[in-house]
Amino acid sequence: MTTNHTAHAVHLIARPAGFPVAADFAYVEAAVPSPAAGTALVQNLLLSVDPYHRGLMDGGEGGFALHTPLEGRAVGRVLASRDPGLREGDLVFHRAGWRTHALVTLGADGTRKLRGHAGVPLEAYLSILGGTGLTAYAALTRTVALREGEDLFVSAAAGGVGTATGHIARLLGAGRIIGSAGSAAKVNHLTGALGFDAAFDYHDGPVGEQLAQAAPDGIDVYVDNVGGDHLAGAIDVLREYGRIAWVGGISMYNGDRSPAAPRNLFEIVHKSLRLEGVLVRNHTNLQDEMEDFLVPYLQSGRIGTDTTVFQGIDHTVEAFLGMLHGDNLGKTLVRLAD
Amino acid sequence: MTTNHTAHAVHLIARPAGFPVAADFAYVEAAVPSPAAGTALVQNLLLSVDPYHRGLMDGGEGGFALHTPLEGRAVGRVLASRDPGLREGDLVFHRAGWRTHALVTLGADGTRKLRGHAGVPLEAYLSILGGTGLTAYAALTRTVALREGEDLFVSAAAGGVGTATGHIARLLGAGRIIGSAGSAAKVNHLTGALGFDAAFDYHDGPVGEQLAQAAPDGIDVYVDNVGGDHLAGAIDVLREYGRIAWVGGISMYNGDRSPAAPRNLFEIVHKSLRLEGVLVRNHTNLQDEMEDFLVPYLQSGRIGTDTTVFQGIDHTVEAFLGMLHGDNLGKTLVRLAD
Repeated sequence: MTTNHTAHAVHLIARPAGFPVAADFAYVEAAVPSPAAGTALVQNLLLSVDPYHRGLMDGGEGGFALHTPLEGRAVGRVLASRDPGLREGDLVFHRAGWRTHALVTLGADGTRKLRGHAGVPLEAYLSILGGTGLTAYAALTRTVALREGEDLFVSAAAGGVGTATGHIARLLGAGRIIGSAGSAAKVNHLTGALGFDAAFDYHDGPVGEQLAQAAPDGIDVYVDNVGGDHLAGAIDVLREYGRIAWVGGISMYNGDRSPAAPRNLFEIVHKSLRLEGVLVRNHTNLQDEMEDFLVPYLQSGRIGTDTTVFQGIDHTVEAFLGMLHGDNLGKTLVRLAD
Repeated sequence: MTTNHTAHAVHLIARPAGFPVAADFAYVEAAVPSPAAGTALVQNLLLSVDPYHRGLMDGGEGGFALHTPLEGRAVGRVLASRDPGLREGDLVFHRAGWRTHALVTLGADGTRKLRGHAGVPLEAYLSILGGTGLTAYAALTRTVALREGEDLFVSAAAGGVGTATGHIARLLGAGRIIGSAGSAAKVNHLTGALGFDAAFDYHDGPVGEQLAQAAPDGIDVYVDNVGGDHLAGAIDVLREYGRIAWVGGISMYNGDRSPAAPRNLFEIVHKSLRLEGVLVRNHTNLQDEMEDFLVPYLQSGRIGTDTTVFQGIDHTVEAFLGMLHGDNLGKTLVRLAD
């Protein structure tokens, strides 16, 4: 585990061929850095591993370099500051995760102080109040502009964005909420604790057929975390003027990056559908609005944070690979310190 | 040719296998019908043949029946009326085309009196002021909400919707307007008479490469009449937040109805693109707004009607097949009487 004298970081040391494996990564020690003028030293408390990291591991423009610390969303506490906007003890959200200690600058690369709502656990700021929650919030309130009573399908519904989508859609007054997931346990979690109206395991048969059974009267909105067969199945059951918020394509991140696109894509014309991509980085201006909307429900216990939390920086790769394999319920996080 | 005693109609007598051929159709004579109470007898003056007719020829729900007159947009003159809203001599727009005489009811199935703007030729009401113009107008002003200075690509640009898109985009203040077409003559027509900034013949090489050369700085908006390679090429050159109005897929109407969807569809997520289907039947409420916008430009001669006109009901099939083969410049019409 970390000390105040040694910093630990996760490096990518090989480009994954298809699915990443543990040997693609290394845990590297270094001295804890000292903050230069205008920066603050942060001890990370929680970090987030996300599907989009897989894409960045292929390198290229904006991708991860080899043999340097990986990056990702994290929450930490300021240990020492030469940034006039940050003081020792401040809790900050930043993007220099996959490491125990980081140097940050307030306002740079999304670094901000946490608003710190009473009764809201720190995990919330990397899940329902973090990037995954903001993705779901932007997709539902902006991209598809969900209206009360509309029926919704979300794929990878037991994952980070999926669980947030279920919660927020319910709070917005959605009609039927239908989810897909990758195991019977997850399906039970969706229709049980998470209150989905219907759910299915995509291993149990063709996605299109299962979705058509789960949504015999069609759907108005689809939040797509998967692409491929899921997208095709949703296009089939969407009603006229249906909208799709395309958030991610976890089915495409490993190996074949160009799956057969939906055979029925032209139904977008026949049914006047709208398919729109959502990148959370374009919606950071909604952060405060989302917190104002969700925090009362978190404080009252009406919704939870829905996280799978690994303990210790040396379990970060395990957390990431498990998330990619779909072993998680909700958002996958790693706790580095209390 | 038609007389006042005999009516002529075009029937579909066989389901086309792939590309339609003349033998799939028959010209059928019948007595001119008498109007029942609430209907008016119309002599058609002009009728429209359109790409969407091909899809309806496959039958199924909403498709054309065999051995009955085909239907399509037409403009005609009332010969006798038992509809209190229509009088002998009125000019009407209606959907009972592919025949010389039709019974119509004002307000039913889109039947309306022409507003009859001075100095505007009748052809305009089935082209730039008709369904093709309305498609382009709805796509540009509503679906993609084109903003001044934005760069646009339109496929099948020398066809009915394409020429209307070029005109309307220019009048709305578009930046660069780029078009694709299927012959050198059409390309010359686009960059010459129609004032496109760039155009290419899609036979001259891969669409994606030609488009990238024609739009080296990218585009903001794509109006898609084709699908397939054109859609993939546009996705490649669209800038972040680019919008696609998907109007038609003439490349898909014959034979293979499920072409390989774009290999790069997931770029919709990476670039926050929006792909939305446009059906003109959902935008008929914009008819008056469009006429108010376009008629002054038609009257001043700033824009033309851009039509390819065949003469006589017995040339309707030839007109339709020629349009499907891309022999037309602008909207393809058939003149039945003066």
